[in-house]
Amino acid sequence: MAALKLAMDAEEVTRFVAGVYPASTDFGWTIQSLEPGACTVRMRVGQNDIRPGGTVSGPTMFALADVTAYLIVLAHVGPRELAVTTSASIHFLSRPPFGDLIARGRLLKLGRRLAVADMHIDSAVSGDLVAQATATYALPPA
Amino acid sequence: MAALKLAMDAEEVTRFVAGVYPASTDFGWTIQSLEPGACTVRMRVGQNDIRPGGTVSGPTMFALADVTAYLIVLAHVGPRELAVTTSASIHFLSRPPFGDLIARGRLLKLGRRLAVADMHIDSAVSGDLVAQATATYALPPA
Amino acid sequence: MAALKLAMDAEEVTRFVAGVYPASTDFGWTIQSLEPGACTVRMRVGQNDIRPGGTVSGPTMFALADVTAYLIVLAHVGPRELAVTTSASIHFLSRPPFGDLIARGRLLKLGRRLAVADMHIDSAVSGDLVAQATATYALPPA
Amino acid sequence: MAALKLAMDAEEVTRFVAGVYPASTDFGWTIQSLEPGACTVRMRVGQNDIRPGGTVSGPTMFALADVTAYLIVLAHVGPRELAVTTSASIHFLSRPPFGDLIARGRLLKLGRRLAVADMHIDSAVSGDLVAQATATYALPPA
Repeated sequence: MAALKLAMDAEEVTRFVAGVYPASTDFGWTIQSLEPGACTVRMRVGQNDIRPGGTVSGPTMFALADVTAYLIVLAHVGPRELAVTTSASIHFLSRPPFGDLIARGRLLKLGRRLAVADMHIDSAVSGDLVAQATATYALPPA
Repeated sequence: MAALKLAMDAEEVTRFVAGVYPASTDFGWTIQSLEPGACTVRMRVGQNDIRPGGTVSGPTMFALADVTAYLIVLAHVGPRELAVTTSASIHFLSRPPFGDLIARGRLLKLGRRLAVADMHIDSAVSGDLVAQATATYALPPA
Repeated sequence: MAALKLAMDAEEVTRFVAGVYPASTDFGWTIQSLEPGACTVRMRVGQNDIRPGGTVSGPTMFALADVTAYLIVLAHVGPRELAVTTSASIHFLSRPPFGDLIARGRLLKLGRRLAVADMHIDSAVSGDLVAQATATYALPPA
Repeated sequence: MAALKLAMDAEEVTRFVAGVYPASTDFGWTIQSLEPGACTVRMRVGQNDIRPGGTVSGPTMFALADVTAYLIVLAHVGPRELAVTTSASIHFLSRPPFGDLIARGRLLKLGRRLAVADMHIDSAVSGDLVAQATATYALPPA
């Protein structure tokens, strides 16, 4: 893969997403760092995200993985409207205690038509790795 | 796989889940049919589930797949608290128009320690198949 | 998804694959049935496919899922050289006894750029469902 | 996850596998490095592994991911016979040129009942990342 270059910085990505997809800000995500090929996203976890036993729900972790993949792809391809995710898989590794989550995303592939991102999700409370996910995006023709 | 038998009917499953996991009823799911090895679940789609372009978000489809896998496993193993999903994968096949979704779940495996369910998700509006998902559950020792 | 139509019949698909990919015939696969949206493929299992305990290896089941996805996609898009699989996931459901395997493939999506196929693999010996797989193909521009 | 400790070194793992599963040595794999939580495995690629276009077949990459997951799990749990893989997913990122492959495996989870490993596969020829895979193993009761 050729060297990756950012097309937008964290502030530009955040502003673009807030414009085209205002509701996404309800998810409570914040880009913590963004560099070529890598992006860290923090997600605020609330009462709606709790599962019995005080753990964070799987769909909440999935939503964080999904938004992280979206943000990292967008940061590299620039402000054009993307196709949705085409597929994703997630492994739940340990039960997160109630509290915020942090996803460390990496771009594994950025082709003309497909992008693949890998996410490791940590609990911001315990620091443990709680999930790993991979997502594929279909990119619209430029 | 030995012949599958239900341990609870749809009403018992619904009541059990409402008891241990009250917030889940906010997802707006309803069991439409339940028989050995198969379960159909309808999910109400609301304003929070919309993506740009008027389509339903991926995490919403994932949440429906996840709850369907949970319900079908629970219906077969009975009212004991389950381990969470250990892994799941989802393929988004076509963009659902805004509106409710229906998941047709089937139990592919029900072992002593692991259960695997396959879900096909249709748009209740267009009738199209919009996603396919597979989820694995770890079962607690009986 | 619009109604599916075959572009080639089983004999044409087999002849095309033998031409562009002669080594594939060593896998010992045979198309048993082919109709719009569905294809059944039998694979001869040999000594190289055994795992300790007399079961069939996971990579052998993966290879059958992969070739089935390739055959079903090819049958619908016609004799053009395809991109390779972009991703695949497989769940091993029960240990197959030593003996041939049969994959029942279904096309879940046939878009302009991506195709997704679902495979259920049965043991030809016991008749049990032994694996489920999903594969995505990127289609070359027509 | 508690700190990981190796139960066997590379030589012990190799000897154990050659004993219980002699045919596996035909795959031509060699452990290049092994440390707590991580393992690098090189696979010899031969004429049977070629796909049209001179690339390495998907099932060959899958087989390397599968054996790497097996080796890394075995190295940490010790010389007991393992359950087979329960599920695996693989993303093909770029077409490998004909030649050997190297998998960098990492243990993401080592529970009492399940282990999850992540593999990045590089071409030994080009150095490019060509695939990413994740595999889950069910561990037998100790």
